[in-house]
Amino acid sequence: MDITERIPQFDEPVDRTAISSMKWNVADSELPMWVADMDFQTAPCITEALKKRVANGTFGYTDIPDEWSTAIANWWKTRYGMDVDPTHITFTTGVIPAISSLVRSLTNVAEKVVIQPPVYNIFTNSIVNNGRRVLNNPLIYSNGEYSIDFDDLENKLSDPLARLMIVCNPHNPSGNVWSRDDLARIGELCAKYDVTVISDEIHCDVIRPGLTHTPFAAASETNRRISVTCSSPSKAFNVAGLQSAYFFCDDAGLRARAVRGVNTDEVAEPNDFAVFSTIAAYEHSADWLDQLCQVAQRNKDYANRVIGERCAELLHMVPSDSTYLAWIDCSGLLDRVGDATAERFCDYLREHTGLILSYGGIYGENGVRFLRMNLGTRADLVIDGLNRLATGANDYVRNDR
Amino acid sequence: MDITERIPQFDEPVDRTAISSMKWNVADSELPMWVADMDFQTAPCITEALKKRVANGTFGYTDIPDEWSTAIANWWKTRYGMDVDPTHITFTTGVIPAISSLVRSLTNVAEKVVIQPPVYNIFTNSIVNNGRRVLNNPLIYSNGEYSIDFDDLENKLSDPLARLMIVCNPHNPSGNVWSRDDLARIGELCAKYDVTVISDEIHCDVIRPGLTHTPFAAASETNRRISVTCSSPSKAFNVAGLQSAYFFCDDAGLRARAVRGVNTDEVAEPNDFAVFSTIAAYEHSADWLDQLCQVAQRNKDYANRVIGERCAELLHMVPSDSTYLAWIDCSGLLDRVGDATAERFCDYLREHTGLILSYGGIYGENGVRFLRMNLGTRADLVIDGLNRLATGANDYVRNDR
Ligand SMILES: Cc1ncc(COP(=O)(O)O)c(C=O)c1O
Ligand SMILES: Cc1ncc(COP(=O)(O)O)c(C=O)c1O
Repeated sequence: MDITERIPQFDEPVDRTAISSMKWNVADSELPMWVADMDFQTAPCITEALKKRVANGTFGYTDIPDEWSTAIANWWKTRYGMDVDPTHITFTTGVIPAISSLVRSLTNVAEKVVIQPPVYNIFTNSIVNNGRRVLNNPLIYSNGEYSIDFDDLENKLSDPLARLMIVCNPHNPSGNVWSRDDLARIGELCAKYDVTVISDEIHCDVIRPGLTHTPFAAASETNRRISVTCSSPSKAFNVAGLQSAYFFCDDAGLRARAVRGVNTDEVAEPNDFAVFSTIAAYEHSADWLDQLCQVAQRNKDYANRVIGERCAELLHMVPSDSTYLAWIDCSGLLDRVGDATAERFCDYLREHTGLILSYGGIYGENGVRFLRMNLGTRADLVIDGLNRLATGANDYVRNDR
Repeated sequence: MDITERIPQFDEPVDRTAISSMKWNVADSELPMWVADMDFQTAPCITEALKKRVANGTFGYTDIPDEWSTAIANWWKTRYGMDVDPTHITFTTGVIPAISSLVRSLTNVAEKVVIQPPVYNIFTNSIVNNGRRVLNNPLIYSNGEYSIDFDDLENKLSDPLARLMIVCNPHNPSGNVWSRDDLARIGELCAKYDVTVISDEIHCDVIRPGLTHTPFAAASETNRRISVTCSSPSKAFNVAGLQSAYFFCDDAGLRARAVRGVNTDEVAEPNDFAVFSTIAAYEHSADWLDQLCQVAQRNKDYANRVIGERCAELLHMVPSDSTYLAWIDCSGLLDRVGDATAERFCDYLREHTGLILSYGGIYGENGVRFLRMNLGTRADLVIDGLNRLATGANDYVRNDR
């Protein structure tokens, strides 16, 4: 699909400034392409469900109906061929609230949690804020693509204080969709060293059309036994602000500790909109999601093309099979001007073009030469953003600040 | 106001069965008067704010605008004459999420937290689930009314492991509105033994018309210095399911620890409806609340009258100046039949009349002879509920099971 091919639901302007949007809390001329929510209106069925719930007019405490867990189980079965027992699913107010709680309930203070940077920055907060320690297993970056360093991983997992690993599947920010083999190998190593796995699959539904996501727990029997899977309709359906997520876990002992934890931490009770919106998403909005995946791919293809045409020697977009995010290697540009990191370029873009991207260094030390660009927006803003980026990159090098 | 005087906004039927309401998840013939949410539609301004937000169609991450803290500060100034610095207010997803987090951030494992039973049962969970210990300072029950046992309180506070006290102001379930003197005396004792106070003021807005609430922190300079106040529009405006609450705290050191805690615990981020509904409540719904207070008082007066007329020797309703809850002493009835607690009577009511009340024993050992009845509902259900209660009480004694 070409960027000139417009899709009404996704390419019409939506005003997000009047709703106290975190992303759009910017100056008039600025274009925010950072925080990972999208500018699209969510699937019509979801908005309808919300309208109906608001019309009731009473907003007391909500129970979680069986329909909720059935909708989730059906989703995983239909889209990913995986059997999830509905009674093994637990509501949480978000994926990060769940992960932070799991860090607390599955490890002790000063124990270690393995992550694979460059990776979603909040994992580190969830570990460090709770007095646990980060054990980095950096991804290998070679020929412009990422892969897992299994030797280093085994080394890290063999640390007797390593108790937990957080897998980002698919990977944010790189957009890597891990293969069944990769996932099974991770599981095998973790089992060998008695390390529990949290698989964060929040991005799994936004995937290159034609590809499919492999749930960590579906990659092997071992994986299923040693893992807790966290997910949510929030990224795919653009409903992060509805605070509706869940985890599932097959092992009864692990599940009991996880469930006890999220209840103690008070992140296991739904607001009045969480349950209904999740049911509407998973039961009635699959077609909308398929269209979204087309749009995300269209936007990424366009970004890749513009970067190739206008600043190929400065920037490289890492090939991505998932998410609506572009992970951009700025090495060419940095080498020209002698910058060690992309931080000044990131600031420059905001100051001189108004484009707001995320500095890659927040995702780990091996992210310092990258920028992350959120392409979850309508065509004209994608075009505008890429123009600002390409112009900014060329100007930055030319001025050689 | 008499129960025959109907108020359209409050006395019309509202169907709460189709919204997965926790309270109304009951059999057809049953009448739930337990969970503390009301059957009234919330203030029209709040529903309007929600409708407007839903219409936007995008549900990403929300920032907390200054308008939110200003609305809260104005509310406390206008209604309770108290100055709250808007920059000292922190959002939380609920009062209990805040209290549980404060227990974790302001005490260590195995330290002790003072509470005053009979009191809202979840305080005990927030303490025990986090590995802290409960130190009970039971209220004195004498001549059918409650007061504070200050000698025992001093004794408990002098325990060197006592680090925190949770004050319920006004008190749930008794409905006591503590006087300025009582509050200042609590504060003085806590300061003497270096005990921090959490004041849970979630019920403060529902008060007997003509009376006023004294915020714990407003009772003295000492109180202000040593306390964190938690509140929410949830009880008064019937929006518990919107998960919007807050705390404020004057002392910079205490505040920093509290704020760090709720962020680590991931209970400090608003869903997309939390902020707007709170602003609508506090800025535009004061008249609605005044009416609600009239209705709550009407319902409590009616309950008191029916109990007096139909079963005065069996039941006694504790005089209550706050909340829409009735705290009913069943001693007369229990003595007649020789029951030690009201638990069997509570079960009997559900089984034989369909009336569902809360058993008082969950609020503490000195609550075992009581039942709590939620009167936050329309006139015909209040009448129905009191009829079931009075009939049930008389039948229970007659059958002398
Ligand atoms: C990998 C990953 N996990 C979790 C989150 C946040 O999830 P939530 O908002 O449900 O806490 C994000 C948001 O960008 C993410 O990228
Ligand atoms: C005294 C008290 N505090 C807190 C709560 C619950 O507050 P939230 O739903 O905001 O956690 C209640 C609910 O009945 C209550 O009575």
